[in-house]
Amino acid sequence: MIFRQLFDHKSSTYTYLLAERAGGEALLIDPVDENTDQYVRLLNALDVKLVLAVDTHIHADHVTALGSLAAKTDCVTAMGEASGVECVSVRFSEGEKLRVDNLHLDILYTPGHTDDSYSFLLPDRVFTGDTLLIRGTGRTDFQNGDPAAQYDSLFGKLLTLPSDTFVYPAHDYNGMTVSTIGEELRHNPRLQVGSRQAYIEQMNALDLKDPELMDIAVPANRCCGIRAAA
Amino acid sequence: MIFRQLFDHKSSTYTYLLAERAGGEALLIDPVDENTDQYVRLLNALDVKLVLAVDTHIHADHVTALGSLAAKTDCVTAMGEASGVECVSVRFSEGEKLRVDNLHLDILYTPGHTDDSYSFLLPDRVFTGDTLLIRGTGRTDFQNGDPAAQYDSLFGKLLTLPSDTFVYPAHDYNGMTVSTIGEELRHNPRLQVGSRQAYIEQMNALDLKDPELMDIAVPANRCCGIRAAA
Repeated sequence: MIFRQLFDHKSSTYTYLLAERAGGEALLIDPVDENTDQYVRLLNALDVKLVLAVDTHIHADHVTALGSLAAKTDCVTAMGEASGVECVSVRFSEGEKLRVDNLHLDILYTPGHTDDSYSFLLPDRVFTGDTLLIRGTGRTDFQNGDPAAQYDSLFGKLLTLPSDTFVYPAHDYNGMTVSTIGEELRHNPRLQVGSRQAYIEQMNALDLKDPELMDIAVPANRCCGIRAAA
Repeated sequence: MIFRQLFDHKSSTYTYLLAERAGGEALLIDPVDENTDQYVRLLNALDVKLVLAVDTHIHADHVTALGSLAAKTDCVTAMGEASGVECVSVRFSEGEKLRVDNLHLDILYTPGHTDDSYSFLLPDRVFTGDTLLIRGTGRTDFQNGDPAAQYDSLFGKLLTLPSDTFVYPAHDYNGMTVSTIGEELRHNPRLQVGSRQAYIEQMNALDLKDPELMDIAVPANRCCGIRAAA
């Protein structure tokens, strides 16, 4: 498998490129609009053809590259059914798969950070979006976020995966690139609260500022990042 | 194998943690002083014991954590013989190995960025310091840098490795985390010049500013990052 983790310095977003083999098909997860040319150069260097670009959810902190990639590569774009966005080629649901050649990623619906948050699972790794971060979890105070739903997504789904499953989140702010389910279960401070109610109270007490780009990014991302001409 | 790539946002440095197994010994390559506590937390979380901390060379852009890690963990510290530094426990040479449990990394002397630059090799990956970067090479205009020596280190050693060898550099400024020897041979613009002389001329024409921290970092790193009390 070809696997690349790319980091957007401005928004601390991780983008993932996956392909089964050189000469084959590729998938991008959570691409950032401003890095579109970098992705295209890398796809060419790796000799893979982008066939699918997906977002784990409607991001509030950066503009998605789904639209720009579709324009430059003719890839299919996809987001979850719960996103309600009209701009993508396909809307997926839990139980379906993302397919590029013989790589098949299981789709899990993992709401909580937003009501349209999904995770994508391979046998040895899971792409958790903003649901499960390294030593953290995504905030739940906007875009129909819901700490109770997040608790259920975490403890009912993601954290039931084998403990050596690698965790690849959509962001990290502390220079960490990967973790495992077992490591997060034991060492993620947000997961040590002991009950669903305590988790809800913890998340409701966070009192965070809105992301800087939120008023630009959310409307842009509902249109796959294709911003109306001025 | 346990393998973690860690990113220091301030200096865009990559630090690598390697261990054969949980419960065993660990190695850190190019740790950054300010992140010492993060490394100690991660070592504990992964249940590994730091036995060895090394720098690929005397860095000019950040202060090494070799001294602070030795103080906190009793690890052995090591740098190359060509560094001439007195503060480390061990000075290694080309042909020797870094050993943590049954992980044995071959040591290659790869001068050019500095005259004390080394690379460390496992069967499937190489840690190239500032000698080979992703789509770049380390500058050669200070600390006895030498573009001719760098050309020889690149074309005589690193680029002769199998083309699917993963390249893990000490820095990246563009959000890339890994590459391969084959990819760099084909797509690294610095490596497309065609001759040793053209490579030397290319490097001598770069005209870069000194790193911001150079006057602090280089003297500090000659003492393993242990700065004299004010």
